[in-house]
Amino acid sequence: MKHHQFALTPPMGWNSWDCYGATVREDEVRGNAKYMAENLKEYGWEYVVVDIQWSESGAESSVYRPFVPLEMDEYSRLVPAENRFPSAKGGKGFKPLADYIHSLDLKFGIHIMRGIPRQAVHRNTNLLGTTKGARDIARPNSICPWNTDMYGVDMTKEGAQAYYDSLFQLYAEWEIDFVKVDDIADSKLYSTHTEEIRAIRKAIDNCGREIVLSLSPGPAPLEHASLLEEHANMWRMTDDYWDKWELLYDMFERCYKWSKNNGKGYWPDADMLPLGHIGIRSLDGGGGDRWTRFTKDEQVTLMTLWSIFRSPLMFGGELQDNDEWTLSLLTNEEVLYVHQHSYGARQIYRENDCVVWSARDRNGNTFAALFNISDEETTVSVDLEELNGSESKLARDLWNHTEAPISNNNISYTLAPHSCKFLRFS
Amino acid sequence: MKHHQFALTPPMGWNSWDCYGATVREDEVRGNAKYMAENLKEYGWEYVVVDIQWSESGAESSVYRPFVPLEMDEYSRLVPAENRFPSAKGGKGFKPLADYIHSLDLKFGIHIMRGIPRQAVHRNTNLLGTTKGARDIARPNSICPWNTDMYGVDMTKEGAQAYYDSLFQLYAEWEIDFVKVDDIADSKLYSTHTEEIRAIRKAIDNCGREIVLSLSPGPAPLEHASLLEEHANMWRMTDDYWDKWELLYDMFERCYKWSKNNGKGYWPDADMLPLGHIGIRSLDGGGGDRWTRFTKDEQVTLMTLWSIFRSPLMFGGELQDNDEWTLSLLTNEEVLYVHQHSYGARQIYRENDCVVWSARDRNGNTFAALFNISDEETTVSVDLEELNGSESKLARDLWNHTEAPISNNNISYTLAPHSCKFLRFS
Amino acid sequence: MKHHQFALTPPMGWNSWDCYGATVREDEVRGNAKYMAENLKEYGWEYVVVDIQWSESGAESSVYRPFVPLEMDEYSRLVPAENRFPSAKGGKGFKPLADYIHSLDLKFGIHIMRGIPRQAVHRNTNLLGTTKGARDIARPNSICPWNTDMYGVDMTKEGAQAYYDSLFQLYAEWEIDFVKVDDIADSKLYSTHTEEIRAIRKAIDNCGREIVLSLSPGPAPLEHASLLEEHANMWRMTDDYWDKWELLYDMFERCYKWSKNNGKGYWPDADMLPLGHIGIRSLDGGGGDRWTRFTKDEQVTLMTLWSIFRSPLMFGGELQDNDEWTLSLLTNEEVLYVHQHSYGARQIYRENDCVVWSARDRNGNTFAALFNISDEETTVSVDLEELNGSESKLARDLWNHTEAPISNNNISYTLAPHSCKFLRFS
Amino acid sequence: MKHHQFALTPPMGWNSWDCYGATVREDEVRGNAKYMAENLKEYGWEYVVVDIQWSESGAESSVYRPFVPLEMDEYSRLVPAENRFPSAKGGKGFKPLADYIHSLDLKFGIHIMRGIPRQAVHRNTNLLGTTKGARDIARPNSICPWNTDMYGVDMTKEGAQAYYDSLFQLYAEWEIDFVKVDDIADSKLYSTHTEEIRAIRKAIDNCGREIVLSLSPGPAPLEHASLLEEHANMWRMTDDYWDKWELLYDMFERCYKWSKNNGKGYWPDADMLPLGHIGIRSLDGGGGDRWTRFTKDEQVTLMTLWSIFRSPLMFGGELQDNDEWTLSLLTNEEVLYVHQHSYGARQIYRENDCVVWSARDRNGNTFAALFNISDEETTVSVDLEELNGSESKLARDLWNHTEAPISNNNISYTLAPHSCKFLRFS
Repeated sequence: MKHHQFALTPPMGWNSWDCYGATVREDEVRGNAKYMAENLKEYGWEYVVVDIQWSESGAESSVYRPFVPLEMDEYSRLVPAENRFPSAKGGKGFKPLADYIHSLDLKFGIHIMRGIPRQAVHRNTNLLGTTKGARDIARPNSICPWNTDMYGVDMTKEGAQAYYDSLFQLYAEWEIDFVKVDDIADSKLYSTHTEEIRAIRKAIDNCGREIVLSLSPGPAPLEHASLLEEHANMWRMTDDYWDKWELLYDMFERCYKWSKNNGKGYWPDADMLPLGHIGIRSLDGGGGDRWTRFTKDEQVTLMTLWSIFRSPLMFGGELQDNDEWTLSLLTNEEVLYVHQHSYGARQIYRENDCVVWSARDRNGNTFAALFNISDEETTVSVDLEELNGSESKLARDLWNHTEAPISNNNISYTLAPHSCKFLRFS
Repeated sequence: MKHHQFALTPPMGWNSWDCYGATVREDEVRGNAKYMAENLKEYGWEYVVVDIQWSESGAESSVYRPFVPLEMDEYSRLVPAENRFPSAKGGKGFKPLADYIHSLDLKFGIHIMRGIPRQAVHRNTNLLGTTKGARDIARPNSICPWNTDMYGVDMTKEGAQAYYDSLFQLYAEWEIDFVKVDDIADSKLYSTHTEEIRAIRKAIDNCGREIVLSLSPGPAPLEHASLLEEHANMWRMTDDYWDKWELLYDMFERCYKWSKNNGKGYWPDADMLPLGHIGIRSLDGGGGDRWTRFTKDEQVTLMTLWSIFRSPLMFGGELQDNDEWTLSLLTNEEVLYVHQHSYGARQIYRENDCVVWSARDRNGNTFAALFNISDEETTVSVDLEELNGSESKLARDLWNHTEAPISNNNISYTLAPHSCKFLRFS
Repeated sequence: MKHHQFALTPPMGWNSWDCYGATVREDEVRGNAKYMAENLKEYGWEYVVVDIQWSESGAESSVYRPFVPLEMDEYSRLVPAENRFPSAKGGKGFKPLADYIHSLDLKFGIHIMRGIPRQAVHRNTNLLGTTKGARDIARPNSICPWNTDMYGVDMTKEGAQAYYDSLFQLYAEWEIDFVKVDDIADSKLYSTHTEEIRAIRKAIDNCGREIVLSLSPGPAPLEHASLLEEHANMWRMTDDYWDKWELLYDMFERCYKWSKNNGKGYWPDADMLPLGHIGIRSLDGGGGDRWTRFTKDEQVTLMTLWSIFRSPLMFGGELQDNDEWTLSLLTNEEVLYVHQHSYGARQIYRENDCVVWSARDRNGNTFAALFNISDEETTVSVDLEELNGSESKLARDLWNHTEAPISNNNISYTLAPHSCKFLRFS
Repeated sequence: MKHHQFALTPPMGWNSWDCYGATVREDEVRGNAKYMAENLKEYGWEYVVVDIQWSESGAESSVYRPFVPLEMDEYSRLVPAENRFPSAKGGKGFKPLADYIHSLDLKFGIHIMRGIPRQAVHRNTNLLGTTKGARDIARPNSICPWNTDMYGVDMTKEGAQAYYDSLFQLYAEWEIDFVKVDDIADSKLYSTHTEEIRAIRKAIDNCGREIVLSLSPGPAPLEHASLLEEHANMWRMTDDYWDKWELLYDMFERCYKWSKNNGKGYWPDADMLPLGHIGIRSLDGGGGDRWTRFTKDEQVTLMTLWSIFRSPLMFGGELQDNDEWTLSLLTNEEVLYVHQHSYGARQIYRENDCVVWSARDRNGNTFAALFNISDEETTVSVDLEELNGSESKLARDLWNHTEAPISNNNISYTLAPHSCKFLRFS
């Protein structure tokens, strides 16, 4: 499908949620964009994404203030809170910020909630491109379980598609490149909102701009894999992910289950990378302002799994505070090569919390990731025959940039708990 | 518990829903009250209940108009729409209508929805008895699945109990005798709202007036029987009930399951009686303006089951249009005696859709209801030994006012499909 | 119903499971019976119950040996393993042991599994009173999730009722007084087995002996309360209960939910008392051979809750090893009076893990149990007005046999964590 | 994976279930094989599969006789009942029948149930290659919900893998080419039996013969798609399928959901084709001995959906009774070309029960299937741009072998209810 062209490799970027919750300000976005342009762009990082509630002038943390007024235009469309995004003044919306990010040769993304603002519905405000009002298209019993901003839209109603079209028309005017739609891929109250996914797909197709579509939150049900693959570029296969080992441990099973469901342009999403300096104004994930609680071994394990699985990579920390170690995780070209250019990733082995994944590229290389996700030191061995059906003489360690000869077409590593080896065989 | 004194026998009355949906007007309420006073009061009928959305000036049928404005006082409390209830003008609320109904020596009931008006929450209007506003006590993700008027109340918040207290203070000022609280006994989204049931119990206890508490909709889960019995006077054990045989058939199982869960002052409720002229301005139940679709046999079966089970009896038709037959169903003193004075009802037998219930009174009488709920003519027999452990010589037919001798302490009737016999043994 | 006469007060006795798992021997049963006759009978304890797998000659612990042969008579009925129950030799079954227990003026109970032995079904052995064989009445896909002895019986088949009748005919010949039927009140695979409950009720009614019927395991669903109350004398409202505080904590909610569902002759069952010396040959409950892990406060809390709720009391420890403290828990006449003679028990209050229950007797006494089930010392107060609507001057402490004056018709106790006060007001 | 090589295109063959239930005899198998060799082989049909219970000498229909003895060898392995498969006499098993089928240049398949015979477990018979007995490896509470032959195997037990290895060793000796394992892909009691799927995969890998693995019954959960794709060649995505329109209607949604989950060697299976003469000795599906109840339009719709989706094609009728029409459905080379050689099938459109699927081949052809699955005549149109992104001048009708010019790169057909068009564009 045409829109799959918008993200032929899994997107890489930065998202404001893990560090700033619902509160990020324009200066912070610009700062992270500048850092990305200077330090990460050459490695493939390109999206700068403003997460939830940029219309809420009084947002204080990751805890939403229920029922508070939001900034909205005359057509019931939310617009940036000017106190937080000064360049939006004069009705300019996100256009000036997009211009800045584009000037750095980066791409700009925003978060939106499924639906139409409740404040619009209760006031029955106007919509663009239809004589119907906000009240006419709202779906009465469709809410988000964790945020009070919106009502769902009833796509059987006249004016419903016009409303979604008007949103993406505005985002196209702002020159947005990426939209993360929330409260849509899964809902504890209603499961997946399939009709609104279809409507948003149509709205993007109608808007004339190549906008990458990301769906949240997870875990999106596998039952809807076909729909997600056809309509989105990425979708969350997990609930909110944070710097806790049990969540990383759990991701191995999720990746296994979703490993057949990606392709050029559509990517199951293991969620953002809670690395570096996070929790600055976010209470979500339970840690407060902190350096990631993952150990270095765990951080490498995370980056390895995300890379071989080819999840989108959205860094969640304040980039400007990165230390050398954190930066090194994001700039390892040999690792990112797998993320961008491999295919056919699959778990070939899991026993006693030893897990092995493999993938290939179009140049005859095979990749293997050996994980010890138990709490004990363990030896993980792989018969290379199983990996690629051919013989290899040399294993390249992608994290350490070292090489080691292989004997008997078999490799074996003793791995510390929660650690891994990421290898290439030519 | 003290409030169980408010309804020592299962309440009997009239409710506007089955005939007028959300639209009943004051003249219609008065008309039905007058009819009740003149024709039914002497048989025990006493409650006149205005059902849902009396604050909605534009209500048109049983289909709610989503998100429309409601009439509300300065303390976020809904008040009657004056175009529909002219006596409410000048801020008098339901007091004048209550006065009229009391002048007929009847009791007055109203319906309310669990929660606080969404319009109050979005405007953050004032509450009585607390400095908190509507926004402070609303529970963000608590809605009714089928009506957009209210948000639930978060009882952990300061001001929450004050709000419910203020509601019942107002109803006490209006001299309301009966409140049917909806969206509380069961919710397809959230199950039973136990905390708001407790809060409403407290609010009634605090209000200084004896107000019967009825909880809807059903089916209330048996899992919460203890809570319901302790806090309410009646609660719905069924989803909305209409004039369809399959719903009546299904009620036998429901009555069986709930038959141990009544007592002086607390009554599982099999819902209103969709008899006589119904559907006048209601589209619910799928029949339009009509005479009840139940056959006469089915109507007798319904009245017999409700009576021996001791469900509250709330007539749903337009009383003023009653024909002689319908009136006769409501004025059979021998049948209503069982409803008001029996105890110990239980299903003693069910096989092949032959069902037998029995009950007793304090004067040594035993009652038996023999039902054929199959679609074929069937003979139903009962050994009287099983019923009351003693010998009877004579069976009194409560619907026909006839008597027949009993031989061998056994009775046997050939019953048409969907019909029954209701008997007394002395 | 007539069979409710068999247990007009909640049964009290001893059961072999908590100390001996599936392995109890005749000498141990006799020893406990003798102890009961000498030490407990005068306090109301009377049932001696042999729990599961008395037909299994090789039983080693509470872990069942799957698919092993069981002792069975010519009619597909399980009989005692003679190596474990020597008096059963010569086809005498449990009759000699029953005689011994009756000679002590006690009552004898046994455990059975729902269904018919799988070994009978696979061999298609004979049944008593029907020409059908075991294979004809077995229900193909009805198994117990945790034990391989039996298949369920398909009650629609000819011979099915005859089989259950033949079982209870045998038990009547053996002069059994109490049968605990397992795998029937709840099943994780199939929920409650209602048809076999009905069949067993009929079989007991047909057998000519007054046999108390107890149904396991729990948690029986409240959904089936009516059925259970009508057909059984007691049924488990909880999964297997052991000496762990979280299970005792949890029982308060279960008791609350089931508190309306007892009556003369039918009793929700909170399971056996894992007190004293338990786990002797049982691995269930995770503790091995041990003295109960409950603290003394917790033991008193347990006995108080079971007594005011009126659960059956089935002691699970090896009685012969009782110390003075344990014996004292079982011989407090003031406490047991409430268990045997009170009525109307209900939880009148629960907040912050302070819980208050009350009950009454026919002599004008009111009982109150004040529990602190939090992990902190807490003060629990009760307004006596709420308890009994009248004024009391004196509170009798049922565990300590002391009295204290009451002022202001209010009582207040500071309670250690997990402890309680059990009081009587005249 | 290597075993994916065994079925690089979706298997095509015949299965005995739809016509003979559990009762097929050797002569019938040979007759169908002969028919296939003479009439169908050249079109790609090659598997001849004996379905369930070939070890049961007394099988009478599709209704299983519970708990009856089965033919078994000394190692607890089921073998053919000699009265039904005379060539098996003398311990030859299915080898002679396989030889015959191979002599026709066809392949031979059998059905087995997951697990080990219950009769082996209860007798604790021997296993091959281990000193453990049948009782040691059976999983106590693992049964099939609809058949009493087997217990599941507990793969954590010593001897468990040896048992499964011994089964496939026997099948390799018999020269079996295809095994349909039942009670494994889905179970209403336990969901998917993942551990036994892994064990059977290993057993086939160990047996030295290329045996296609088919898993039943469905609907297999999408949740386990990764596991199924990796371990099997085909698996049922639907419950048992019969000649009822609502089941065919429903299959469109199932195919949509599974359309991304096939690949060279692994195929979601829409179940057998209940066409031609079916129900001869089968009561399943509710029709008795009959000609398929599908209309001709529905039969074409079925074959079209199965072909473009690339489900395995397993004919269920008695081939020898085929009429010309039925044979024509199985021998349309243009249709079967799509089934064998297309890729990338997907539903590109569904609205108002108009459904359009497309696929491609490696020669630049595009295929489209236009379905009207509503009950009204409807016009279905497709913009060819959407199908293949290029321009076409000519549409080839694959069922009618006709061609029609295309104008405006758009096609439009008025279709009778339940009918379809199957087209190729070059």
